[in-house]
This record gives sequence, structure tokens and C-alpha cells, in this order.
Amino acid sequence: MRHLITTNDLSEKDISEIYRLADSFLEGPTPHLLKNKLIITIFFENSTRTRSSFEVAAKRLGAEVVNLDVAKSSTKKGETLYDTAANLDAMGPNAIIVRHKSSGVPYTLSKHVNCSLINAGDGSHAHPTQALLDLFTLLRHFGDVRGKKIAIVGDIKNSRVANSNIELLRRFGMEVILVAPPHFLPKIDLASTYDIREVIDEVDAIMSLRTQTERHRYPIYASLKDYARDFCITKELIKKRDLIILHPGPVHRNIDISDEVLSDPRCKVLEQVKNGVAVRMGVLVKLLHG
Amino acid sequence: MRHLITTNDLSEKDISEIYRLADSFLEGPTPHLLKNKLIITIFFENSTRTRSSFEVAAKRLGAEVVNLDVAKSSTKKGETLYDTAANLDAMGPNAIIVRHKSSGVPYTLSKHVNCSLINAGDGSHAHPTQALLDLFTLLRHFGDVRGKKIAIVGDIKNSRVANSNIELLRRFGMEVILVAPPHFLPKIDLASTYDIREVIDEVDAIMSLRTQTERHRYPIYASLKDYARDFCITKELIKKRDLIILHPGPVHRNIDISDEVLSDPRCKVLEQVKNGVAVRMGVLVKLLHG
Amino acid sequence: MRHLITTNDLSEKDISEIYRLADSFLEGPTPHLLKNKLIITIFFENSTRTRSSFEVAAKRLGAEVVNLDVAKSSTKKGETLYDTAANLDAMGPNAIIVRHKSSGVPYTLSKHVNCSLINAGDGSHAHPTQALLDLFTLLRHFGDVRGKKIAIVGDIKNSRVANSNIELLRRFGMEVILVAPPHFLPKIDLASTYDIREVIDEVDAIMSLRTQTERHRYPIYASLKDYARDFCITKELIKKRDLIILHPGPVHRNIDISDEVLSDPRCKVLEQVKNGVAVRMGVLVKLLHG
Repeated sequence: MRHLITTNDLSEKDISEIYRLADSFLEGPTPHLLKNKLIITIFFENSTRTRSSFEVAAKRLGAEVVNLDVAKSSTKKGETLYDTAANLDAMGPNAIIVRHKSSGVPYTLSKHVNCSLINAGDGSHAHPTQALLDLFTLLRHFGDVRGKKIAIVGDIKNSRVANSNIELLRRFGMEVILVAPPHFLPKIDLASTYDIREVIDEVDAIMSLRTQTERHRYPIYASLKDYARDFCITKELIKKRDLIILHPGPVHRNIDISDEVLSDPRCKVLEQVKNGVAVRMGVLVKLLHG
Repeated sequence: MRHLITTNDLSEKDISEIYRLADSFLEGPTPHLLKNKLIITIFFENSTRTRSSFEVAAKRLGAEVVNLDVAKSSTKKGETLYDTAANLDAMGPNAIIVRHKSSGVPYTLSKHVNCSLINAGDGSHAHPTQALLDLFTLLRHFGDVRGKKIAIVGDIKNSRVANSNIELLRRFGMEVILVAPPHFLPKIDLASTYDIREVIDEVDAIMSLRTQTERHRYPIYASLKDYARDFCITKELIKKRDLIILHPGPVHRNIDISDEVLSDPRCKVLEQVKNGVAVRMGVLVKLLHG
Repeated sequence: MRHLITTNDLSEKDISEIYRLADSFLEGPTPHLLKNKLIITIFFENSTRTRSSFEVAAKRLGAEVVNLDVAKSSTKKGETLYDTAANLDAMGPNAIIVRHKSSGVPYTLSKHVNCSLINAGDGSHAHPTQALLDLFTLLRHFGDVRGKKIAIVGDIKNSRVANSNIELLRRFGMEVILVAPPHFLPKIDLASTYDIREVIDEVDAIMSLRTQTERHRYPIYASLKDYARDFCITKELIKKRDLIILHPGPVHRNIDISDEVLSDPRCKVLEQVKNGVAVRMGVLVKLLHG
């Protein structure tokens, strides 16, 4: 295993190793396992959050990081993506971390490099480290997730986060229920509903997605407020139920999740951020160490 | 003391410690006192100068630095400042260094983080490390500053640099005289004049401020040239007097200070830049070490 | 020797030392020869490629790097270049690496700093590290380059890469032939032709330049396609001849060099990128170490 393009690239054994590493990083001082390793990040789509999580992870492990500012890069001079990747690879990094708005770009680039290529999100296709940190957060909370039910809520069809989670969570024995308006539901053979109130009593966890106005043009709802009326995770909805709430961030307050729920201890958003650094450290060590 | 929001957060004893550290950093090789520490910078207002001074300071001490490019950050996706800070904090940095165009933002953010929060300038409120380096430069020159007179010249009302210096310099026994046109004078109980020539014979130091066209709209003077006629620090003004000249930079040449004075040994602008790195190193060690 | 502004700053002995270092860096693990050194990069003209090559080189040697984002820098606040350089220098870096669109800027700045100043390309004047890596690539291929013939093809007149190479390659005994349309030929006493087919049988190497639409306004050719018909390096042109092809990148595919030639083993573009890191490491060590 050299690249991480989708969660399918990892066996359950690989994932167990990554999680064992992440657990250890959450506990103690971090050994500089990636000393003298060089990692290049190249984000063709803006994401301060994911990029800085990877950068923090790499630096905690003693690696050197070079961030490419793509807005200014050779791609503006008409260079092909293929050439950009081959050129970066020629500089001898140990890994290149890529985000791109088009599905499939990290896979294609991985064919043209000798180093590891890590997908930090491509189009509506995959976001493997996000799914890995989500499952890790669920495992840390529940111990065992086999048989647990999770509702994924929101614009599932356009979400690489949902895509990667559906694959990964089901592989680890979770039951996934999709909750979305018809236009946001993917054509996939999974339990689904338009009304979260129908399933709220059965679920152990809710994964709220970010409402994304970027990736589809026509308005489904007259306004985000109308959308929120049906799909926002509120105190009125969850009451005192024994469940946890996840969200990949950044959260649209009172559209995705209400202010009140965001400060409820059942909401694990900040824990996900913290776990994200540890899981990405685990991924980097797994791919680059030894 | 965990945060540095204004100079008031520091006792005179704290400041002495910071200066003792800064003195030592100016002399010898720097021990890596902040090895394995992680510092995040997030500048919502552009400032290559202050940001790079902090970055150089942190790196000289062996810390890792992650710079967030805010133009591209989640704040564009509508995330609240509160959430941005809480999320960065969840990644486990030892300090977050913030600049923001609105007064009070660093204070508010400090309530939502577990790490240290350092104010690198907020609106027209405070710029504590600038005042610390200014006082440090005065102390290195005069030995003792008690009883010395300093004229602060320029747009004092809109200046966080002036604000922080007025508090700090007076606390260390200096007499501050404000020199500015009426619209640039704050309502504060301090000696002031519209004419620098009135006080030039009494002062030991002049702190020229940058003329800031950004933070107030209506023109006070028909042109910067008219302003310069009255307030630019020129050779004709200072003659051979025994005084020194400070400026927080970047200097508007021949508006704030004349070319001739800038190359005069009494002008300490570059020494301030050099001292700035040493003082910020002292601040980081004081807040983060041990 | 403190600065590197043009290839003329380096004697043949200096260059031999740099190449001996570069050879060693290509082979083994890199000693941290620049530990505790600080390098500032300031690129007034975009160049992800050159900037990241220098950054990788510096970090491999254990140096700290601070990148200044000039689009946001004090230069926007009207500070002079002189002041920007003097201020950076006051922060105590060991080297400043500069790119600027105007010829002569690095030389002028070098007069105002105490640290090393390295030219990473200025206007159409010089790009010394590019020429150094090109010669290094030729030496690694040919062993001895004395008496070898190289055709430089394209917009030579506006090319700092060509300028620096013409000086350096001739000094090391190569015969340089210029191949370009009349408007792209500099007024210089060197063999030249408008038709590459005239010299293709004599040359040992071809250095294709990037077609630069940025630095001259009037169109020479009706279209890049017309230009390519005459000057693109194609398989039909090079056939099975024993020669190698260089290009400073980024390559305009099928304008500068055809797809087919780019994947031919005689094309050394990616080797140049790899060598570029090693040569820049050699330059940094030569200037900053000991």
C-alpha cells in the first residue's frame, strides 16, 4: 500500500494499525517517526481546515512540509496536472497530499509519481481521511460499532464525506440510514427517508453534513431556512436521547446543527477535529514509515 | 498568565523577565526552548512584517509554525470566528497568534481556547508586542527611561501602536507628549500640542506613527504633503539634538520621516525590527515554556 | 563570495565545489549542514516551481524557511524595495532569496543587506541557479562538455534562462548556437539561425525555452501553433539522433516540445528538476556553511 485514494485502499487490518497509532498519539509525547521525510501539500480547492490538520500531523511527527500555493502555481501557466505532479515528484518528496474539485484527479496523479499520494478530498468522490476520523470517533465513543445505527443527514449525493463514510462504516458493521430530500439522495441500495423524525428513535449517531451551495446550482429549497426547518439537528429533535452527533465541519450554525446542540456534550465536532490530527498522523506513519 | 491581549496583562516583573530573555537572545546562540511546541498564526488583516517577525521568533526557538491563509479559510464559508478559534484549538497548538481589524476579537477568542492566545494587533485597540519592543529599544538606548520625555507624533487616535505605548511607557515612568492635528488626538488626559516645534527642545525621543489612510475616511489634510509639512520628522527639525527616533514601520518616506533622518544613526527603525524578533522570542518563552 | 546574483559571481572552482556537493546530495542521506540557519524567500513574481525547489533544498539541509507572501506584503503599503530588504535583513536571516520581474533588483538589494542575497530570477537578466542546474545536468550526462554543441531554441532575447546559460556554458567550453525567429534573437556575437533543421545534425543538446507571452507584447506569429510548426522539438525533428533535450519548465506541451519527445528518455526535463534541488542545496551550503 503506497497511496491512499479511497477507504477501499485500506484493509481492516491496515485501519486497526492506523487507529492503534492514533490512540497512542492522543496519549503521549510524539516520537519523530517521520524525521527527514518531506511532504508536499497541493490543494487545488481551498481547505484551510484539512490542509492545516495534515500540516499539524506531519510536523508533530518531525516531517518537513512544503505547501504549494496553487493559485499562483504553474497550473496558471498552462501546465498540465500530470506535469505538475511529475515535477513535484522529481523533487523527491515522500508524499504528496492533494485536494481537487474534480473526482478522480488523485487517482490519475498517483499513476505518475514514485512517492505516496494521499487524497485530501476529490470532487464528490472520496475523502478517505475524513471517514477514517469519523469511524475512529465512533469507535472511541462506542467501543464496538457493530450493529450500531447511524443516520447521515443532508446533501448526501454531492458529498465525498458521505461517500467515503458509507463504504467504511458499513464495512465495520454499522447500519447506515440516509436522510435527505429526494434530490439529495444518491441512487444506492440503502435504507432512506425524507424525514429524520421517522428514524430518530432508532439511531445511535447522526452525521450531519454541510449544506453545500457550491456543487449544485438549482435551489432545492426556497431558502436555507426552509431546509433547516426539516433537517437541522435541534434540541427539540434529539431531546434527551442517547446518541451522538458528528459533522465534518465547518458547521453552518442553525442550518446544519443548532447553537444549542453544538454546545451539547453529545456533539463531537471538536473531538473529531482533535481525532483528525491523530488519525492523519497514523495514516502518514502507516504510509511513510519504515 | 496564559494570554497576551494588552500590555496590561503583563506585570513589570513579567516584562523584566521577557527583556532579560530578549537580551540573551540578542547575544548568543538560541537554545531550542520551544522544541515540540506548535504555534498557529492567523492574520485576518495583512501584515507580512509582524507575521514574519513572530514566525522567525518561533522558529529560532525550535517551535513548529503553521500559518493559516485566511483569505482562503473557512471564514469564507461563513464559519463564525468563535468556531474557527475553537477548531484551531482542537488541533492542539500551544499558542494561536491573531491579528484582526476589529478591536476586541483576540480577547473574545481567548475565552474559547485552551492554548495561549497572543494579540498581534486588533483594530485601533492594542498591539502589545509592538509596545514591548519599543520600550525595549528605549531601555537599551537610555539604560533608565524614568523621567525621559517622548513625543508620539501622528494619527494617535486611530493607532493601536500609540494606545499600547501610552499605557506601557507611562507605567515605566516616561512622560508622554502627544503631537497631532486636532482630529488625530484622542480624548485622553495627557500633554498635547499641534506643533512639534513647541516641544522639540524638551524630548529625548520621538515616536513617529505611520500615516494611516485605511482606518478613517475623510481627509484631514488636502494632501499627505500638507500633513508632512507639519509632522514629518526632518533634519531641519531635529538638527543636532540629542534624541532618538522610533517608528513601528513600514515608514512612509518623506511623509512620516525624511530620507535624511532615516539614515541618521539616531533613527532606530531597523534596531526596532531586530529587537522585535528578540522580544517576541521572550514573549513566546514566557508564555509557553515550562 | 556572499551573494549569488549572476553566474559571473562564481569562479570555476566555486562551481566545481557546488557540483561536488550536489553529487553527494543525490547519493546519500543529507547531513543537516544548515541547522539553525534561517532563510527568507520573497518572490515578487510567481514561481511555485523555483520557490518550492529552494524550499525543499533548504529544508533537506535542516534550515528554517520563512516564505513571504508578497501579494500581501508591505510593498502594498507603499514601502520601498530598499526598506523591505533592509527590514528583512534586520530580522537576522542567513539568506534572502529573491525573484523580481525587474532586471537588477537583486543586485540593488544586495547592497542593503548583511546576509547573503540569492537571485532566483530577475526580469530578462539572469537566473543563475537555473543555468547551474542545466550545466550540471549536461555534465552528468556527457562527463565532459568541452567542445559539445548546444542549440538554445525559442524566445532567447527575453529569457533570463538563456542569458545565464550563454555565459556559463561558454565558460565551460560549450559551443552555443542560437535558434529563433529574428525578433527573438539578441544582438550578440554568436552563431545563430532561424531554422533548427540547419543545425540539428551538429548538436549534442537542445535547450528548448518556454514560449513567454508575458514579457513582450506584439505577436510575432499569428498563433502559437505557427510558432510550434517551426520551433517545437518533435520526434520527426530529432529522429534517432544521439542528443539530449533540456527545458527549464514549465513546458508548453506541443508548442515547446511534443508529447512524444517529452516521454523519450533523451528528454531530461524531470532530471533537471531533481538536479535543481541538489544544485540549490550545493549553492546554499557554499554560501552559508562555515
